[in-house]
Parts: sequence; C-alpha cells; structure tokens
Amino acid sequence: MPRSVAVVGLGLIGGSMARDLHARGVEVAGWDADAATLDRASHEGVVTPIGPALRELESVDLVVLAIPVTAARGALSDIANLSGGAVITDVGSTKRSIIAAAGAAGVGQRFVGSHPLAGDERSGWSASRLGLFRAARVFVTPAATAGAAAVSSVTSLWRALGAEPELIPAGEHDELMAWASHAPQVVSTALGAALADAGVARSELGPGGRDATRLAGSSPDVWAEILAENSDEVSRALRSVIARLEGVTAAVESGEIAELKAVLSRAREWTAGSS
Amino acid sequence: MPRSVAVVGLGLIGGSMARDLHARGVEVAGWDADAATLDRASHEGVVTPIGPALRELESVDLVVLAIPVTAARGALSDIANLSGGAVITDVGSTKRSIIAAAGAAGVGQRFVGSHPLAGDERSGWSASRLGLFRAARVFVTPAATAGAAAVSSVTSLWRALGAEPELIPAGEHDELMAWASHAPQVVSTALGAALADAGVARSELGPGGRDATRLAGSSPDVWAEILAENSDEVSRALRSVIARLEGVTAAVESGEIAELKAVLSRAREWTAGSS
Repeated sequence: MPRSVAVVGLGLIGGSMARDLHARGVEVAGWDADAATLDRASHEGVVTPIGPALRELESVDLVVLAIPVTAARGALSDIANLSGGAVITDVGSTKRSIIAAAGAAGVGQRFVGSHPLAGDERSGWSASRLGLFRAARVFVTPAATAGAAAVSSVTSLWRALGAEPELIPAGEHDELMAWASHAPQVVSTALGAALADAGVARSELGPGGRDATRLAGSSPDVWAEILAENSDEVSRALRSVIARLEGVTAAVESGEIAELKAVLSRAREWTAGSS
Repeated sequence: MPRSVAVVGLGLIGGSMARDLHARGVEVAGWDADAATLDRASHEGVVTPIGPALRELESVDLVVLAIPVTAARGALSDIANLSGGAVITDVGSTKRSIIAAAGAAGVGQRFVGSHPLAGDERSGWSASRLGLFRAARVFVTPAATAGAAAVSSVTSLWRALGAEPELIPAGEHDELMAWASHAPQVVSTALGAALADAGVARSELGPGGRDATRLAGSSPDVWAEILAENSDEVSRALRSVIARLEGVTAAVESGEIAELKAVLSRAREWTAGSS
C-alpha cells in the first residue's frame, strides 16, 4: 500500500479511488478541473487540494490520472517536468496511446496503465463511493520499459482496493475492448439512432429491445474519445458486425429460413457459452 | 367471457391462456402437437383433449391458435371445413399473413388476430402459468372483413385475462414490430455471431455488452419464421440500422469526433425519451 497518492480527476472512478484510499489511511492529494468538485472533496476531508503548480505531485508515491485520455496525455508532460519519481497510472478505457505518450514524455520507466471495469452510467464526484472496485476486474498494462517495482506497486494498489488486477499487453487490451465493449456500444447507439430516425419511441420496445439499446444512453463525450482513440481495432470489429448484419438482412430479404436459423443458432450457442 | 374455448397449441402462451381460462370457469378444449404435453395438460385437469377429427372445435365459442404462424395458416383451412362459427384468434408475432390466410380460407368474417407482448425466454407447457397476461399489452388486429361481434369477443377475452388490448391495423402492427422487436433481435444476433467468430467469449463482456447481446439467446426456430414472415418491413428497418452503423464506422475510421458525438447524442436523447 502506498503512503501517499495523488488523484488527478475526482469523477466516479478517481473520486471512488480517493475515498477508498483515504478510508485506508493513505494520504490523498486531489485535483479536479471543476473547482467546486475539488472544494467538496476537500471539505469532506477526503483529499488535500493540489495547487496550480502541482508541487504536491513531487512528494507522493503514486499518481493516478483519472481524467479523459487526451487530457491524461498532456498531464504526463507536466509530470515529467517535476522532480520526484512517483509511479504513474491512469484509468482510461484504451491503453496503447497513453503508453506511447508516457514513453514520449520520458516517464515510460514508471508508467503502468490501468483500466478498471467498474462504474455505471452515473458520473462525477457525487456518484463516487467506497467499495466501487471490490471484485472488479482491472486490466493492468505496463509500458514496455516499465520497471518491475512500478508494475508491482500498481497491481498492489488495485488489490488493496479489493479489485482483481490482470496483466495484459496494451495492444491485446485494446483489441479485446474493441470487441467486448466498444463494438457493443456502437451497435447499441446505431440501433437507437435508427429507431429515433424512424420515430419509434423507446417505450414501444419490449424488455429485450430495451436491453439491446441500454448502452445507447452512454455519455457521448466519453465515447467519442474512446472510439477515436481505438479507431483501428474498433473499425475491424464493426466491419465484422456489419458483414454479419448484411448477411442476415440478405437472408431475410430472400426468405432463406435455413440461413436465418444458422446465424440465430450460432449466436445462441455463443450466449450459452458453448462456442 | 366465452363459455367455451379451444386452445390449439399448449406452449407458454397457449398453455397460460388455458390455465387462466380454466381458472375462471371456462370450459377449455386443448390440443398440442406433442402428445405428452396434451396428456399433462389433460391430466392436470386444465383442458379436455381435442381429438384428431377436431369435432370439439365445432361447438366452442372461440378458437385460439397458439402455434407457429405457418402451422396456424394451415389450421385455418381445417377450421373452415368444420361446421360451427366460433370466433378465431391467434397469438403470432406477425399479423398480415395470417389475416390474408383467414380471408383466403373463407373465415375472414370471424378472424381477429392477437399478439400478446408477454412471456420470456422460457417456452413450453412447463413454463406456462396463471397470470401471464396481467397488465400485458396485446395488439388486436381484425381482418378487414371481421364482424364487430368477433372483434369485441377477442378484446373481451384479453381483458378477462387482465391484459390491455389495443386495436391496430395489421400493416401498422408489422411495421412497428419490425422496428421495435425484429430489428433489435437481428442486431443482437449479428453482434453475438460476430463476437463468436472473433473468439470473444460472452464472459469477457461487461454488463452493457451482456445486455446488448441478451436477445441473441432467443429461439432460432421461432425467430427464423418471424423474420421471414415480416421480411419487407424487417429489411427496411435493418437497412436503416446498417446505414447508421456504416456512418458511425466511417466516422470512427476518419476520427471525426464531432460526427461521433452527434450520433451518440442522437441515440442518448432517444433513450431519454426526448426524441
């Protein structure tokens, strides 16, 4: 467990990390782009505010960047210009670009990326809470140049919060997420947008249709960035979904019952975990 | 409330109707393609078995066809050849073809289609239960030639089972279902099949991805028939979803953040019910 941690960004993820760490007796320095949020977190006694000069980052053991990935890339250069050798991690949904940025900023030796699979559709400090990471899967993606001590301090951090860290190369992580998370997001969004275009209200859908479009309610700002960051892998996954969808549509149009049954069965076997 | 009803097909829907009607003191004659199912329903005292000559259908007030739509179309000709003038309804997910078949069989005057939005992924007599239709929306689609008394006896039947019948022309019904039910089914199936092709297990998905692929677990036999029956409307809906998906994929590939935000926002507003 680190003695002191700086949490940059006090939203759902950063805020919940700050609360958990504070509850475990860790000194937490905090920062947020929103002054009112930082005031609240400080007033509640969870964090000590980080000042504009960022000097607080020079004395902590670990820095957590819990801000959008484009902002996190910029923060890496600022941190590289400070003294101190804190281990740095982030919590972003894509990992290749932040690791490249850490290398470019000259902090590759002490940067280890993280991606906690935790949270829900709520966001911000007001949604943050104790125990958010209990039993959560957390992908940990070290930069190729990262030191073993840095890797171990990041995995230990997550274990201390009750999470289950899992080491995975950044490239594999981004590919897996393109399929398992980013493609379902886009498919749900495209379905929702098409239904909106057709003037069909969500209240007309049954429970299955509502499930299929639940992700369409996700944050546009967050997702536009994730999709653009992981563009090559997301494109591959989406092109594959489109090909399948084209295939089913052609079978519908020509009334090929056997073909329809085959693809419906393929998908059903997959949901049952047998393929 | 009818005095006597014949329920043809004792699966989840037909079986639950038989149970509800029996519990309300209605005489229920029952039939099922599966002899063991018919035995069970008869043994439990819920139905009196309908014999192979179908004579029981000549004396009932109402016949419910709770079998797949292709089988239901065939049954209409058999019923037309019997004496008696029972009102006939069905419970299929598409309505234009069964209504056309009723007209062709010469029973258009007494045919009123139904489509109850009830049930879940379970099926068969063993899944049938009392109260399945309580507060359920039921689309009622009379043939153009249907008599007012026939319409009223079908809507009364559903009200007696606690459902909320809603009159809608068959064409409008099939169009609405193509968007609100059939397209979400296909999209979920295509996503599931693409993930299966990529070797990504369902257990790798987060809660949102699992929601998005829940419908992929639906019955291939049931759905292949529904999609083929409603082919023209389903095709229109799917082509629109594909166009949206192509648009998002192009925006991902060219990194057009503003375009991505626009479609994500469009879909999110729709989920919030504001568009």
